[in-house]
Amino acid sequence: MSTRRKKIYEGHGKILYEGPEPGTLVQYFKDDASAYNNAKRAVLEGKGVLNNRISEYFMTRLNTIGVQNHFIRRLNLREQLIRELEIIPLQVVVRNAAAGSLSQRFGLPEGQPLPRSIIEFYLKDEKLGNPMVTEEHITAFNWASTQEIDDMMALSLRVNDFLNGAFGAVGISLIDFRVEFGRLWENDFSRVVLADEISPDNCRLWDTQTREKLDLDRFRRDLGDAIEGYAEIARRLGIMKEMPTVIQGGLH
Amino acid sequence: MSTRRKKIYEGHGKILYEGPEPGTLVQYFKDDASAYNNAKRAVLEGKGVLNNRISEYFMTRLNTIGVQNHFIRRLNLREQLIRELEIIPLQVVVRNAAAGSLSQRFGLPEGQPLPRSIIEFYLKDEKLGNPMVTEEHITAFNWASTQEIDDMMALSLRVNDFLNGAFGAVGISLIDFRVEFGRLWENDFSRVVLADEISPDNCRLWDTQTREKLDLDRFRRDLGDAIEGYAEIARRLGIMKEMPTVIQGGLH
Ligand SMILES: Nc1ncnc2c1ncn2[C@@H]1O[C@H](COP(=O)(O)OP(=O)(O)O)[C@@H](O)[C@H]1O
Ligand SMILES: Nc1ncnc2c1ncn2[C@@H]1O[C@H](COP(=O)(O)OP(=O)(O)O)[C@@H](O)[C@H]1O
Ligand SMILES: [Mg+2]
Ligand SMILES: [Mg+2]
Repeated sequence: MSTRRKKIYEGHGKILYEGPEPGTLVQYFKDDASAYNNAKRAVLEGKGVLNNRISEYFMTRLNTIGVQNHFIRRLNLREQLIRELEIIPLQVVVRNAAAGSLSQRFGLPEGQPLPRSIIEFYLKDEKLGNPMVTEEHITAFNWASTQEIDDMMALSLRVNDFLNGAFGAVGISLIDFRVEFGRLWENDFSRVVLADEISPDNCRLWDTQTREKLDLDRFRRDLGDAIEGYAEIARRLGIMKEMPTVIQGGLH
Repeated sequence: MSTRRKKIYEGHGKILYEGPEPGTLVQYFKDDASAYNNAKRAVLEGKGVLNNRISEYFMTRLNTIGVQNHFIRRLNLREQLIRELEIIPLQVVVRNAAAGSLSQRFGLPEGQPLPRSIIEFYLKDEKLGNPMVTEEHITAFNWASTQEIDDMMALSLRVNDFLNGAFGAVGISLIDFRVEFGRLWENDFSRVVLADEISPDNCRLWDTQTREKLDLDRFRRDLGDAIEGYAEIARRLGIMKEMPTVIQGGLH
């Protein structure tokens, strides 16, 4: 159990433990939900279990199409084994339609399709409120190199294509999502590798027909029954049947 | 006098009038000062006269070194003749040291030199609070093309080199500055040309020795005697002797 392992880091949604071998970590998915740079918090029972499985599903499939990522294998309901990376201190956001801060910044109605997908970078620094940054800031302060920025953008667009395909196929619109990347070192060289998680915590997902929100925005905006959105996504992706009975039974 | 000409646009600091020939405008420099997206306003007597002359000085010299800009000639104390451009709706900021919003965004002390000069783009849209934008936003929303962004960045860096040289020579540190660009159309082709003004309204200028602020920040932050900073800059640039006696005599 996780309690026997050395805790490396505890974030808002996950805990990192030392892995069984050097260069590996165990990522433990908590039920804690947080929004607005942690100003709003709650426990959404079952969220960790759902996210662990949903992220496994996407990371595995992304590996198959050559989008290298940190995922090795799922260990149990809440834990997965991952490759330890040197995390690049940026959050990469890909947007297909306006929502959230982009809606506000440019006065665009939520859900309005963008002329083309837009990639944004945010500095991973909660004390500073995770400010948006540009390539100029990123390279000047040495948070990532120009080559790494290009790699992150190319990989993010591949992930976007893939997720658009996957969600579109089950009647879900991918409004936007946020990912992280890290460096995998091999001797003196490093490669940029997809990290963290892909789950309704980090994606805006709307039912294509009803435009109902099925993601963390249900919690952020007090729309109620947040976890039922996560369960609906697992159901549509066909991975609900592997869930424990308590989650299959409905968590709301 | 300006009253006989057709007014095209009145901004916070300047008025544009129809010019004597097609494709020209008259730029009239007001004494109005504004800050924080126009939330703070005042009249700084003599500012328009000083800025008209200071901007003439820099635009003329920039033309000489091949940085094409809209300036044609100064008409009188408050007016200059300029080429009419299709303004690109962006403000381009070049920073050599941390100050203002960058200090706040990244928690850096004002005046701390940056690892290298940083260029930022802000959308010229006061209703939206002139938000910072990235190349991704600019190209997706078609505010400028990739080529135009490259041109604006290259020109801004040349202006920065030039201004660093000019101000450094008279004991003034150029912390940052903001410029605008426009398109000059020739048949179906357009060129990116420097526009607007270069003056202490748009530059952060510190005395290198005392680190005293000599720019609009004196007004923004209620440091007092704002116009005396502008006059000091004109004095150091050697263009004060052309000013009317009332300005030479001291405006504070
Ligand atoms: N492969 C990896 N190697 C090392 N760190 C990782 C990896 N994947 C994700 N992380 C980091 O683990 C943490 C995940 O926990 P989370 O609760 O999301 O944290 P946070 O609150 O900082 O977002 C994040 O800080 C993330 O950057
Ligand atoms: N060469 C030019 N051709 C057309 N418009 C210009 C040119 N140079 C500057 N402008 C525009 O003229 C206006 C100058 O007035 P200003 O008081 O600075 O306005 P604002 O309050 O909009 O910044 C700005 O809107 C600027 O974009
Ligand atoms: Mg996280
Ligand atoms: Mg202006």
